Amino acid sequence: MELMTGESSANSGATAPRSLGLATDLYELTMAAAYYAHGRRERASFELFVRKLPAERSYLIAAGLHQALDYLRTLSFSREEVAYLRALPAFAHVPPSFFDYLRDFRFSGEVWAMPEGTLAFAGEPLLRVTAPIIEAQVVETYLLATINFQTLIATKATRIVEAARGRDVIEFGARRAHGMEAALYAARAAFIGGCVGTSNVEAGRLFDLPVYGTAAHSWTMAFEREIDAFRAYYQVFPDSTTLLLDTYDTLAAARLATEFGPKLRGVRLDSGDLVELAKQVRAILDQAGMRQTKILASGDLNEFKIAEVLAAGAPIDLFGVGTELSTSRDAPALGGVYKLVELEVNHHIEPKIKLSRDKATYPFRKQVWREHGDDGTFIGDVITIADEVMSSRSLSDPLLTQVMKDGEIIRQLPSLREAQANARGQLARLPAAYKALAHAECYPVQFSAELERQRQEKLKELERNH
Amino acid sequence: MELMTGESSANSGATAPRSLGLATDLYELTMAAAYYAHGRRERASFELFVRKLPAERSYLIAAGLHQALDYLRTLSFSREEVAYLRALPAFAHVPPSFFDYLRDFRFSGEVWAMPEGTLAFAGEPLLRVTAPIIEAQVVETYLLATINFQTLIATKATRIVEAARGRDVIEFGARRAHGMEAALYAARAAFIGGCVGTSNVEAGRLFDLPVYGTAAHSWTMAFEREIDAFRAYYQVFPDSTTLLLDTYDTLAAARLATEFGPKLRGVRLDSGDLVELAKQVRAILDQAGMRQTKILASGDLNEFKIAEVLAAGAPIDLFGVGTELSTSRDAPALGGVYKLVELEVNHHIEPKIKLSRDKATYPFRKQVWREHGDDGTFIGDVITIADEVMSSRSLSDPLLTQVMKDGEIIRQLPSLREAQANARGQLARLPAAYKALAHAECYPVQFSAELERQRQEKLKELERNH
Repeated sequence: MELMTGESSANSGATAPRSLGLATDLYELTMAAAYYAHGRRERASFELFVRKLPAERSYLIAAGLHQALDYLRTLSFSREEVAYLRALPAFAHVPPSFFDYLRDFRFSGEVWAMPEGTLAFAGEPLLRVTAPIIEAQVVETYLLATINFQTLIATKATRIVEAARGRDVIEFGARRAHGMEAALYAARAAFIGGCVGTSNVEAGRLFDLPVYGTAAHSWTMAFEREIDAFRAYYQVFPDSTTLLLDTYDTLAAARLATEFGPKLRGVRLDSGDLVELAKQVRAILDQAGMRQTKILASGDLNEFKIAEVLAAGAPIDLFGVGTELSTSRDAPALGGVYKLVELEVNHHIEPKIKLSRDKATYPFRKQVWREHGDDGTFIGDVITIADEVMSSRSLSDPLLTQVMKDGEIIRQLPSLREAQANARGQLARLPAAYKALAHAECYPVQFSAELERQRQEKLKELERNH
Repeated sequence: MELMTGESSANSGATAPRSLGLATDLYELTMAAAYYAHGRRERASFELFVRKLPAERSYLIAAGLHQALDYLRTLSFSREEVAYLRALPAFAHVPPSFFDYLRDFRFSGEVWAMPEGTLAFAGEPLLRVTAPIIEAQVVETYLLATINFQTLIATKATRIVEAARGRDVIEFGARRAHGMEAALYAARAAFIGGCVGTSNVEAGRLFDLPVYGTAAHSWTMAFEREIDAFRAYYQVFPDSTTLLLDTYDTLAAARLATEFGPKLRGVRLDSGDLVELAKQVRAILDQAGMRQTKILASGDLNEFKIAEVLAAGAPIDLFGVGTELSTSRDAPALGGVYKLVELEVNHHIEPKIKLSRDKATYPFRKQVWREHGDDGTFIGDVITIADEVMSSRSLSDPLLTQVMKDGEIIRQLPSLREAQANARGQLARLPAAYKALAHAECYPVQFSAELERQRQEKLKELERNH
């Protein structure tokens, strides 16, 4: 079973859990108070999407939905949190009943979303919230932080896994992640993106992921002789030892490793010229009849370095990727936004749009349709108004499904293994040109004629009013 | 009082706290088991330092110590965590008494560290742990994740604050941080680095930081007319309203804002040409007698953009910085490492060293001395063996102080305000050439002659043995 939450428990003794009400930006709560004060209770729809893909990225792998829904399901405001807000000078003129409202707050809305592991592109809603406007607004920050981060890491993982061309990739990045909670969810997202497991034990336990480990340089340094360190470790972990070779002299250490024979699980290279070292270490091992012993490479690897060493013929069997994966180092932020698209006033739907330069939005609740050929190959996506009939497109699938109603999760969410398989399967259907590591072509995504027409109408209406 | 912890509570109901034992890499625990199996209980010293500063960085601002010590103070292994480990196939040959050892585990060691807010440079230990080797080893991952992340963000914040030349900078980055716990500690670290506050309400409450907010585009979009949105907000927050101007047409919105007169706290620009818009908006406000109304700028700002708009004369009073700050976007990982430097065997100290190419280390527990001139200006740092006498250097201060003994915090840690003042004060003593935003000169850091001499001796000894 997968356990989950996006919550961080922040208190001195680390013993009392906290509610999540204040895990948001202040303006979400000031807007909530102002909506409340003005009696605004209408339902609003917000969509979460990425305007522009990060550098070098030509697709996204959606991730983080499970934590996002868990947040919506459990969100509340504790007595202490409400007291804190009430004491802020800014809230001095807010009607006192607003604070009672917060004490009773629960999220009662509905959510449509792409399942985790879904291939997504710029402009496509990954998630849509429809709820009374206060509820829909206050959840913005948490939803963005959660979906942005995990989608960022799942996407980076997929690129690295693609570069490894069938070799296993293990997530090794906890020490450079943005704190240990980030490390935890980076491990989760990396698995969705195709990693076989993680070095993060907590992630292994909470998400039922395979955990991997070798040994550190300090282990070798703690013994008088390197061979003593190797023997001591192998004795305790005869079935799973991967010896770290580069503490002093990699090739000398490889020769020491031959003492353990073909049952030795693996060796690790963590510095130096990986191509040359891997070839020489492989030769040393093979000469000792240790063809089964695997070579693991680590040390500031990324998709480009992996592609390079494999192209140069490095006989590396698996890769441990840390910093570059757990921080998505070359593109460490996903610019997801959460925009109002509809307001329901007196049973009438008002589409909403924003005009800010370069940041204009499309109105209406939307659906994303993925068109494919007879052989399943993806051809292009069409973003439509949610209830628009897609009659002429028989070979297309809607990507957003309803996952929450009245604040409750209404369908079984995919397991992490299912999400990983989902990502792998979809990526296989994406033509190669759209997933090249660098300079990939832009996958075609268009808005439907009806959505473009209605948007133009809305634009004209706004121009008249402003 | 500052409440603190680095813990994330990860469970489905978010009701039960968890211990932190498994918040680490697997190899820390396999090494622990192997040390245990071989009866290795000697004290070891590890130092946490950064080999090479990230791109464009010429200094670091140390941060995260409070959370690191809180972790050490509370670290334990729950029954469930131990059961999980025991069931891993890799642990099949580990002596059963190791799992009893884990159930009783507590960190009993000592820690020396630079106080939060200390200016630091490559190669300098930010923190040193001395403890029985198992304890000193298993804490590696968590300490690195915590110190690396907060130091990264505090450093980035300082650069941004320096660029703002006295104008206030507010941390706005929760939605793009690596999850909400990363957002929380990014807000904390940004404050140490000189930000005046954060939009993150949870950070405000837990760390007693000033919280700031404006309003979102969605607020304006939720009203028929922009002026209705402005009036509705101002009515609830008459003393603290900052109107967002760029939902439709920035200058038209600025003219609407003049209705509120000089009591209006501020306006926010979030897109477009900030220099031109700020000048025109300032003119509109000034003409309406609103010289006190401040202009806040936001929207993908960083230290370089801030320096640029200020150099171009943009009359901006304060900056809200999000993504670039909370992810340290141009350099999103700090490469801190945690290396064995001494081992105490039979009451004899053995200095330790690693030779890996480009990753060689210096042996011995160390101290960092900061030399300054008569006027307080920093001249350079010297890294010495911890107990080396610095007789010839009268104007120099040691940077590492003991903060933990027998697993307990033994001195009052600086408050966040003190840490911020510490950083600001030290930065003021650093000559300008060493803190330029780009192409800064490299601040002189050297190892003492004695340390170099002893290292050479150790190197020769290792060469003889390998």
